[in-house]
Amino acid sequence: MKSCITISAIQQPCNADRQSNLQLSIDKISEAAAAGAELAVLPELHLGSYFCQSEDNGNFQLAEAIPGPTTKIFADLADRLNIVIVASLFEKRAPGLYHNTAVVFEKDGSIAGRYRKMHIPDDPGYHEKYYFTPGDPGFCPISTSVGRLGVLICWDQWFPEAARLMALAGAEILIYPTAIGWDPLDSEEEKNIQIEAWLTIQRAHAIANGIPVLACNRTGFEPSPSGQSGIAFWGSSFIAGPQGEFLQRADPAESRLLLCDIDRRKTETVRQIWPYLRDRRIDSYQGLNSRYLD
Amino acid sequence: MKSCITISAIQQPCNADRQSNLQLSIDKISEAAAAGAELAVLPELHLGSYFCQSEDNGNFQLAEAIPGPTTKIFADLADRLNIVIVASLFEKRAPGLYHNTAVVFEKDGSIAGRYRKMHIPDDPGYHEKYYFTPGDPGFCPISTSVGRLGVLICWDQWFPEAARLMALAGAEILIYPTAIGWDPLDSEEEKNIQIEAWLTIQRAHAIANGIPVLACNRTGFEPSPSGQSGIAFWGSSFIAGPQGEFLQRADPAESRLLLCDIDRRKTETVRQIWPYLRDRRIDSYQGLNSRYLD
Repeated sequence: MKSCITISAIQQPCNADRQSNLQLSIDKISEAAAAGAELAVLPELHLGSYFCQSEDNGNFQLAEAIPGPTTKIFADLADRLNIVIVASLFEKRAPGLYHNTAVVFEKDGSIAGRYRKMHIPDDPGYHEKYYFTPGDPGFCPISTSVGRLGVLICWDQWFPEAARLMALAGAEILIYPTAIGWDPLDSEEEKNIQIEAWLTIQRAHAIANGIPVLACNRTGFEPSPSGQSGIAFWGSSFIAGPQGEFLQRADPAESRLLLCDIDRRKTETVRQIWPYLRDRRIDSYQGLNSRYLD
Repeated sequence: MKSCITISAIQQPCNADRQSNLQLSIDKISEAAAAGAELAVLPELHLGSYFCQSEDNGNFQLAEAIPGPTTKIFADLADRLNIVIVASLFEKRAPGLYHNTAVVFEKDGSIAGRYRKMHIPDDPGYHEKYYFTPGDPGFCPISTSVGRLGVLICWDQWFPEAARLMALAGAEILIYPTAIGWDPLDSEEEKNIQIEAWLTIQRAHAIANGIPVLACNRTGFEPSPSGQSGIAFWGSSFIAGPQGEFLQRADPAESRLLLCDIDRRKTETVRQIWPYLRDRRIDSYQGLNSRYLD
């Protein structure tokens, strides 16, 4: 396996027209492949509008099986372009059992693995607990021809535990397909604090574990179905190196293909200098399995 | 207990003259108290030069019992100024058994508690595993009249587990007495990456747990006893709010008293909006107690 690879993140807007979203994704993945990328990551639930702004029974119609019609499209694309793709789908696992799932396609079009979102949010505008059953495969990296991918999804990005478990299981990079944005009613100061927090905590996962991080967010404003407010997805996708240093960043509002070379060997060098894995006090971490220590 | 308090961090240089270091600490704590601070935090091992640059048997002479002569000085000071003090000492616990220990003094001069550094580094210039036995009390906040203090020490700041365990045990603020700096031989780019990583990971502990963070580092250059190189302690002490937002920051090279008001109530508000404690997957975190998952 090569130590240096070119990776990419596709920051794109999404809307209710699934075909146009899909075509934009395909165009951008093709562009990434033409530029030499061996890995392309799409934002969370990139096929459509972010339907979790409301609890609407009709939205369960959007779910599909894996493998299914959409995975067939991405499998063919991965094979044709000889690129590893991380897509994000609303998975129908069984009647009445749905997940928020990332699917990783190998360069030959086979499915390398899937990750079912473990941490499920539920906040005004993000009613995910209504739609998505919490994932049950745990935190398992997906082995591919470009390395072991620590694929997590959006809300997972706020939990250092998830990043650490992926790293301990051998992940060589953390990947976060994401759909997060601002409430337009928030102040500019609050918006700035929120996006800074989002960048900071994910860069910290790189730092704590000595591996790169790729976060791929959607962009654009999507009104709420209620007609009141909506979400201004804040883009700002980025790729950071194993010391948390920014390698590539997108602005909040742009449709953008991020491309970046990373060198797998750097993780070992960084971990030798910053040997956190050596010094973890695993004799004293039992409390992490508790809800609260009162 | 009041919800708003004024807290302070004393960024100071330290040298081989213990009496002058101590006098500077006392002067600055007095200044903080006069300005209304109810909590003052000193850097790690502030009594002297950072002796861990070399492995020298003679340095064990620097260790002292707790309580002992130095705690008597800080106890009297806390009582006289009516302020909570976090000091950092080289503790002699038993013959041949030493710790890197933070001591918290209550406003009445009593010892509220102590924390023995759990994660011990060992790198060129930081030979702490030679001197310090890893702490054994675990991650227990210290209850004081200004709240429950999650006191950790320096190297602990790189471990999200430590911050999380303190938060789960009820810590209302994370406090890091620190002695960290640059190798003057490193490039400016590498120095910048390192200090950014240090700021980022500690701000991330605030974000992940919804509590403020105070980091108090020493400043100034201390040559290595070998005469080769040394450490340029990078100062940059800071206080961040529960979303990781900077409230106060010092520059790398200045001797500086940081003063800041924090409002304990903000933690509950922030945690309601960003409810990570609600959504932790404690059914799936067992791997955190493992060295590696291979």
